[in-house]
Amino acid sequence: MIVLAGPASPKTAEHLAELIGAQLVKVEYKRFPDGESYIRLPANVDGEEVIVVQTTYPEQDKRLVELLLMIEAAKDLGARKVTAVVPYLAYARQDRRFRDGEALSVKTVLKLIEAAGADKFVTVDIHKEESLSWLNIEGVNVTAVDLLGKHLGEKRLSNPVVIAPDAGAKWRAEKAASILGGETVVLEKHRDRITGEIVTKEVEVDLRGKDVVIIDDLISTGGTIANAANIAKEKGAERVYVACTHALLIGAAMEKMVKAGVDEVIATDTVPSPVSVVGVAPAIAKVL
Amino acid sequence: MIVLAGPASPKTAEHLAELIGAQLVKVEYKRFPDGESYIRLPANVDGEEVIVVQTTYPEQDKRLVELLLMIEAAKDLGARKVTAVVPYLAYARQDRRFRDGEALSVKTVLKLIEAAGADKFVTVDIHKEESLSWLNIEGVNVTAVDLLGKHLGEKRLSNPVVIAPDAGAKWRAEKAASILGGETVVLEKHRDRITGEIVTKEVEVDLRGKDVVIIDDLISTGGTIANAANIAKEKGAERVYVACTHALLIGAAMEKMVKAGVDEVIATDTVPSPVSVVGVAPAIAKVL
Repeated sequence: MIVLAGPASPKTAEHLAELIGAQLVKVEYKRFPDGESYIRLPANVDGEEVIVVQTTYPEQDKRLVELLLMIEAAKDLGARKVTAVVPYLAYARQDRRFRDGEALSVKTVLKLIEAAGADKFVTVDIHKEESLSWLNIEGVNVTAVDLLGKHLGEKRLSNPVVIAPDAGAKWRAEKAASILGGETVVLEKHRDRITGEIVTKEVEVDLRGKDVVIIDDLISTGGTIANAANIAKEKGAERVYVACTHALLIGAAMEKMVKAGVDEVIATDTVPSPVSVVGVAPAIAKVL
Repeated sequence: MIVLAGPASPKTAEHLAELIGAQLVKVEYKRFPDGESYIRLPANVDGEEVIVVQTTYPEQDKRLVELLLMIEAAKDLGARKVTAVVPYLAYARQDRRFRDGEALSVKTVLKLIEAAGADKFVTVDIHKEESLSWLNIEGVNVTAVDLLGKHLGEKRLSNPVVIAPDAGAKWRAEKAASILGGETVVLEKHRDRITGEIVTKEVEVDLRGKDVVIIDDLISTGGTIANAANIAKEKGAERVYVACTHALLIGAAMEKMVKAGVDEVIATDTVPSPVSVVGVAPAIAKVL
């Protein structure tokens, strides 16, 4: 078994190879002066099972094309089985048509990964698990919530309360709460019809003397998390932690969260960022 | 019939729709704050034949992903037949393995276009026509040499001589020469084994009193063209024109050519550039 480290995921691949006892091969890559990517597999993969590890952020399209080139090259060079491990899957949020004629981009991306030659697909905390039904190959979504919960556990929170910033994050909050031994609060958010802004509904809850963890799959511009943090602070929360799998942190996301009273942000390393402190390899290794 | 104009090829698509009398639909697109592309087809394509027009330079990977999203969306929305028109095909020069383990990137790219749902593929002056054999769908390569020749013809060159900067450009030079009514000179180039530099062999030819046209499929960094222009000038050429299909013009390509004595560069609009003065739509329209 060979773990092929893509340009975007050298550390995850290394950790993964270690955990499953496979040979680590680092793909050779460069960018030509015209902007094209060059990919070379510096090992004989003929007859081997190859696990290609490549996240697809940032520069989603470049990372995606590198991934597709690696999968196809491995297959073309005789790999017996190719598993595509994509810790963060770009385009996963484009999973339905809000308006007629929109591209279902996640469908296209999954279809391309399969067409390139993947026999199995593994990702972490995909936006909607149902998206994997677009695949005809085996598709596995693993969650990093246990790893995040464990990491938070080491911080010895006092009277922890885990907040789901919207209904979609409820199961995630419940899972983290069960690890931390605390309660769960689920917030409701909706888009204001006039301003288009995301508004989070107030809740009746007393957070005085409690440390709060706001958990979500992804932090994009930080607006949803900031709304939840504001509410937590208003309700008397002591420290406010934020935990997420994918820290995209677009623009002033960090600043927005800090201003709302967030004390600390932790995330996994599916996306590189200054807060990506939790390695996801152990969650992935379980399904390989 | 609907011509769907991709973000990278609005003019070619418009011209093409006009030439074949099809409805022009401009795809709606934007880039999300995180860098993902958004694609929407603002027309009903159900049961229609759709011609998706999208070149893949510059930002090859972004343009490629947009192309794939458009093809898949058109097919998913019920298009009866989808033809992918890709005036400049990125990755076309990665068509063989110089070293073991290299990705055959052009194979991957063509495979993905087919997998996205294209029923027919059309491109212009692809690096090697044999690459199209990777397709299981109909693949057509058209040449822009006639359009370039016609454009040069309007410049009333005196005693034109068409130079092929290497053996691969011979047929192109002969075709242009037959349009211009002139002779052909084929240069030989090779890579210096020690320095790695491209060297062009001197030829016995008298170009005094003659206008020279150097023709090639593509100008990348301009080195090959500059070598040919130097030789032309040494041999007494009057004016030196350069004509190519794809003007990538990487880095100081223009400066390099001007320093070598090039008076004018013309190219088609497969790639946007300040010298892309010849529209390729008429060559494409013939095969639709």
